[in-house]
Amino acid sequence: MSRGRSERVLARRFSAGGVADEGRRPDEVVVEEPLEIRLDGHLVATTMRTPGHDFELAVGLCHGDGLLHGAPVLTCRYCGTGPAAETEFNVVSVDTGGRAPEPSPRLATTSSSCGICGSTQLDDLLVRLDPLPVHEPWPAGTLFGVTERVHDHQELFARTGAAHAAAAFDRRGRIEVVREDIGRHNAVDKVVGRLLLDERLPAHGRGLFVSGRASFEMVQKAWAAGFEALVAVSAPSALAVRTATAAGLTLAGFVRDGAFNVYT
Amino acid sequence: MSRGRSERVLARRFSAGGVADEGRRPDEVVVEEPLEIRLDGHLVATTMRTPGHDFELAVGLCHGDGLLHGAPVLTCRYCGTGPAAETEFNVVSVDTGGRAPEPSPRLATTSSSCGICGSTQLDDLLVRLDPLPVHEPWPAGTLFGVTERVHDHQELFARTGAAHAAAAFDRRGRIEVVREDIGRHNAVDKVVGRLLLDERLPAHGRGLFVSGRASFEMVQKAWAAGFEALVAVSAPSALAVRTATAAGLTLAGFVRDGAFNVYT
Repeated sequence: MSRGRSERVLARRFSAGGVADEGRRPDEVVVEEPLEIRLDGHLVATTMRTPGHDFELAVGLCHGDGLLHGAPVLTCRYCGTGPAAETEFNVVSVDTGGRAPEPSPRLATTSSSCGICGSTQLDDLLVRLDPLPVHEPWPAGTLFGVTERVHDHQELFARTGAAHAAAAFDRRGRIEVVREDIGRHNAVDKVVGRLLLDERLPAHGRGLFVSGRASFEMVQKAWAAGFEALVAVSAPSALAVRTATAAGLTLAGFVRDGAFNVYT
Repeated sequence: MSRGRSERVLARRFSAGGVADEGRRPDEVVVEEPLEIRLDGHLVATTMRTPGHDFELAVGLCHGDGLLHGAPVLTCRYCGTGPAAETEFNVVSVDTGGRAPEPSPRLATTSSSCGICGSTQLDDLLVRLDPLPVHEPWPAGTLFGVTERVHDHQELFARTGAAHAAAAFDRRGRIEVVREDIGRHNAVDKVVGRLLLDERLPAHGRGLFVSGRASFEMVQKAWAAGFEALVAVSAPSALAVRTATAAGLTLAGFVRDGAFNVYT
């Protein structure tokens, strides 16, 4: 069973700067439900997500956070134990048969006794991740055309106007996987999870598209999955630029309206 | 000392669909750094934020998560202990003299042994928060004009194209507080923290503006702070509509391009 990704509600529409009341009419809104993710039974994270592709989301999040340490994913299953049907599909367990080390909850891993800063976080990544292999420059035309091509696949966005998208594409600009979610991190995790389950990681020779900004966490996820390029519709943060430079990741931003910037 | 909110980087600009290489030129990007938030010395959360108004952010997050339980905020201070200057301003402690109960880390509070779902989360809020007082309908013209008026204050967005904004406004549409951050949750927490520190909570008679979507967490924050209305530039989620209805909160979405929808 898969739960719906959008729901119809009644909304009262005002136009002409709020003056004209057009009355109530149906409006399609995106579904948002919590998903609790477990690794070999241990709680890893709870995320507000749009239902659908939940196993990919769970696997992608565990991979991106560096929790698998190369352990194979043996099974994914829904393991909600509540009496109500609606809770049944909101807990997913990723099972490696105990081959992955016991995860620390996310909160603990971001705490540090000696102060934290962006450089600390970048250093942590440099310990955990190797720089990406040196790659040929990406053709500018490929990077540019991706936004339009992904847009054609954003059917949840078309219905609700509220879903982020992430996509994997190859050097010729062909779109391989598109995932949508109310959370932009979730959309990326779903794409990475799909590639991992298909044994297509590391994603060398591929680019990652995100429909929003390129924050530190987006660069971290792209690096961890082995993408060569990260293409964002909106702007990067300063820490994202520094991290992409350290990773050897091509980072393009503001990919829209006939132009874009390359930051690395 | 306050750290900069944006940084200049060199970016290579391509236009005409990626064909024309205009060379490298300076581009202003938003700063993103971790902030560790403590309540009476206990770790509460770590969030990636744009530096500035950090005390407001810390206080607003503690309040929105229901951690203060009415305890007064006695002091806020930076308490980074790292040797490097850059870590010094990335840990903030909110001090109530031990009057607030010891906080559970966020991860634990979102876990449940009997399954989770949106209804569970809504029920948790109904236990913690009273429905908002019944209020007069908000004038449609007031709700509409807010987006434009806040836009005039979004100077970080104007520089970087990557900062979210949140704002408090009154029934006549006057903007009282505007805060910007790379994270939209942070922008809201900063506004709420400012109002709390000014002893202006609960925010009855006021509306909250957010520059992005109206997710469940946005409605939760607006409700916890006592706002009467939540106005979002983009769309709400289904759970946000249900939660706003339960709270008695006016929820307006897609407030742009001369029109908007009211969902509650």
